[in-house]
Amino acid sequence: MSKTAKTAITPTRHEDYPEWYQQVIRSADLAENSPVRGCMVIKPWGYMMWENVQRVLDGMFKATGHKNAYFPLFIPVSYLEKEAQHVEGFAKECAVVTHSRLQLGEDGKLHPASPLEEPLIVRPTSETIIGEMYARWVQSYRDLPLLINQWANVVRWEMRTRLFLRTAEFLWQEGHTAHATEEEAWEETRKMLDVYAKFAEDYMAMPVLTGEKTPGERFPGAVSTLCIEAMMQDRKALQAGTSHFLGQNFAKASNIRFLDQNGQLSYAWTTSWGVSTRLIGGLIMTHGDDDGLVIPPRLAPSHVVILPVTPKPDSRTAVLEYCAKLKEELQAIQWDGKPLVVELDDRDMRGGDKMWQWVKKGIPLRIEVGPRDLANDAVFMARRDTGEKWSLQRGELLQTVGAVLNQIQANLLQRARDFRSTHTHRIDSKKDFYDFFYAAELGQTGNPRWICPGSLEW
Amino acid sequence: MSKTAKTAITPTRHEDYPEWYQQVIRSADLAENSPVRGCMVIKPWGYMMWENVQRVLDGMFKATGHKNAYFPLFIPVSYLEKEAQHVEGFAKECAVVTHSRLQLGEDGKLHPASPLEEPLIVRPTSETIIGEMYARWVQSYRDLPLLINQWANVVRWEMRTRLFLRTAEFLWQEGHTAHATEEEAWEETRKMLDVYAKFAEDYMAMPVLTGEKTPGERFPGAVSTLCIEAMMQDRKALQAGTSHFLGQNFAKASNIRFLDQNGQLSYAWTTSWGVSTRLIGGLIMTHGDDDGLVIPPRLAPSHVVILPVTPKPDSRTAVLEYCAKLKEELQAIQWDGKPLVVELDDRDMRGGDKMWQWVKKGIPLRIEVGPRDLANDAVFMARRDTGEKWSLQRGELLQTVGAVLNQIQANLLQRARDFRSTHTHRIDSKKDFYDFFYAAELGQTGNPRWICPGSLEW
Repeated sequence: MSKTAKTAITPTRHEDYPEWYQQVIRSADLAENSPVRGCMVIKPWGYMMWENVQRVLDGMFKATGHKNAYFPLFIPVSYLEKEAQHVEGFAKECAVVTHSRLQLGEDGKLHPASPLEEPLIVRPTSETIIGEMYARWVQSYRDLPLLINQWANVVRWEMRTRLFLRTAEFLWQEGHTAHATEEEAWEETRKMLDVYAKFAEDYMAMPVLTGEKTPGERFPGAVSTLCIEAMMQDRKALQAGTSHFLGQNFAKASNIRFLDQNGQLSYAWTTSWGVSTRLIGGLIMTHGDDDGLVIPPRLAPSHVVILPVTPKPDSRTAVLEYCAKLKEELQAIQWDGKPLVVELDDRDMRGGDKMWQWVKKGIPLRIEVGPRDLANDAVFMARRDTGEKWSLQRGELLQTVGAVLNQIQANLLQRARDFRSTHTHRIDSKKDFYDFFYAAELGQTGNPRWICPGSLEW
Repeated sequence: MSKTAKTAITPTRHEDYPEWYQQVIRSADLAENSPVRGCMVIKPWGYMMWENVQRVLDGMFKATGHKNAYFPLFIPVSYLEKEAQHVEGFAKECAVVTHSRLQLGEDGKLHPASPLEEPLIVRPTSETIIGEMYARWVQSYRDLPLLINQWANVVRWEMRTRLFLRTAEFLWQEGHTAHATEEEAWEETRKMLDVYAKFAEDYMAMPVLTGEKTPGERFPGAVSTLCIEAMMQDRKALQAGTSHFLGQNFAKASNIRFLDQNGQLSYAWTTSWGVSTRLIGGLIMTHGDDDGLVIPPRLAPSHVVILPVTPKPDSRTAVLEYCAKLKEELQAIQWDGKPLVVELDDRDMRGGDKMWQWVKKGIPLRIEVGPRDLANDAVFMARRDTGEKWSLQRGELLQTVGAVLNQIQANLLQRARDFRSTHTHRIDSKKDFYDFFYAAELGQTGNPRWICPGSLEW
């Protein structure tokens, strides 16, 4: 498969990266735009990746002492007003609920009826409503730390949306913690950044740099925003997760106070941290190639697809039986702490089309079984990451499949690291900075123009 | 423990059932009302039960061939208009988003700005938006059946709310399927009802009756609504889950059509089915007693709590070490397909208060370890369901703890079944019906009045 003159995705990454991104999503059937402006539909293959992200991160959050809870979707407008920076950051892009009923009008259409006493916004993030609850729950130092996470949907009315990367509604987790001391809150902020970095590298195979955002890019209301950033294949940076040290700003806005061990009343120190379905966008842009999606095995909805090759009707039953048995044997194998997930695609369609569907979906391993393989008790295997193909005995397959998946996982991370280091240059002066981008643009398009730093980010 | 003159919950079930319900939730720290009208905050102990409900049901949905996906939170008002019954059912109680921005007014407050072209409602259920997507996805009989589930939050602006049972925002799952034939859609409707019934009995230990709702209680737009109903301890019925056969109503409203094997264009047959956080309310009302919550072990956030009894400082370290080791040993035990979840509560507080906190939280088993137990390598165990307490050797505990949890699970189901059959009477005429309730009311309050059928339901 790998590189022939023709690629499965048009345009290629080189030709038009943003359009390539949309086409990868479409051909892997991950998600699509809905009729509701800026809101996407996450389809099963895409949602399964998100479920894997959730499962792993949720385990990491619990292992670091956090518990899940659920807070209201709606936030009274007056809550937003409590923190000045926060209003500034979110008032411009929020969905406002003003009525609680629809009523048939004289035009035969439904119109909003029953205005609310106070408008509500759909949460763009939950610091203010969670702060209100924490203020009720925290009285003494014995109530701290409060370590809670929420898996939820949030809405930010973005003007320009892009599937997974920036949508009006998105799915995320938001951790919200309250602590007795500044040191402890800082420790939490850094700890969760480390969790994100570890997840990105160990599971997404996406190498990240960690650091602090500039004041202009800070979360509205935070004292400091730390983040993980990854280099996409167009050499732009993607902000993939943030961890905020909120100081006492939100504790003061929400009045989260406690009696410390000396009987003094103090404001708590809080943090918040989140990652979203944007991670799926990062995964696509880190590993996808000109034949479509490439999924790191640890987050793959399925690890292996078995493709029966049945050119002649008389051998069809035997091949299908062999494949069904092989599927069972593979499913009995534990890998990465769970049974392997195996697809057997026996749909009645052209073998080439079927194979390319799975290539575009990014499944790590494909196994082809034809009539001749039966006699040899052998199969033909193909790796999605490298395009390598080889024949091997069934017994060998069962013994080595876990190791091959480990190799794929490691190879994807290494490849992404190599890409990043190849495209990372140390620049120490503003002049060198401009010269570098002038030359880069000249080399790529023959048409020199300055690239502004903003265009280096997704 | 069990019944002494004083109970941990005031009032008792007998004294005031609805208020008892609120107090059980409060004293188990499951949830509380938020400042947003009708929206609750689900606290960690309550949310962990919901996570267990999700985990088990999700497995059952996947085992029956369904996949998860995610659809938009918002629905254009015009979509609601497509199905006449549906409008009727939901227009009166929906949150309407009319603006996409807030702006500071001259009064120094934030006001809605930027009106939307078309108002959006926050989904009260997703038939119409999912139908719109299915119409795009379904072209041929090969695209059917479409078997998708969504875990999501929904909003129905209820006037009178009650934690878990009826809240303006709630969490649920909604399955939406499309089929080529009426028979297949009916089969799906019944299959998912069976899944709910099995879940209710096997996991919640809540016996249910299954049946069809009257036309007046049907889901707005359905041809038929099947449901599971359980008897609560006040002898009222709780509708705990519904499965709807939608016929072609929504397929026609959304234009879900396909070319069948004969090349004919036909409307698909659809179903939908859902259960919500209301299940947690049903669990509380089925098993709770006058000392608080009682959780069936299969859905318990934790199975066992170890309570060190340390009356004297000199034995404290030894007792705590023993308990820590015991915790590890218990956590190594697999029960119901997962490791046991064990709490070690070594907080520095009065032993009695601590014990009662766990009773009220409904944890299935409590284990007390004091200095004298160390010498005997024995512990003191208490069952939450029956109040039984006994001393046993540590080795015996480790060998039997799984069996005891099985007994608790079985006992809770049997107890609920017995309660239901004791309070179930066959009545064949309207006269007998009135006589029965007249007598029942007279016996309970000495103050006869007719009970209307509506008051028999939650």
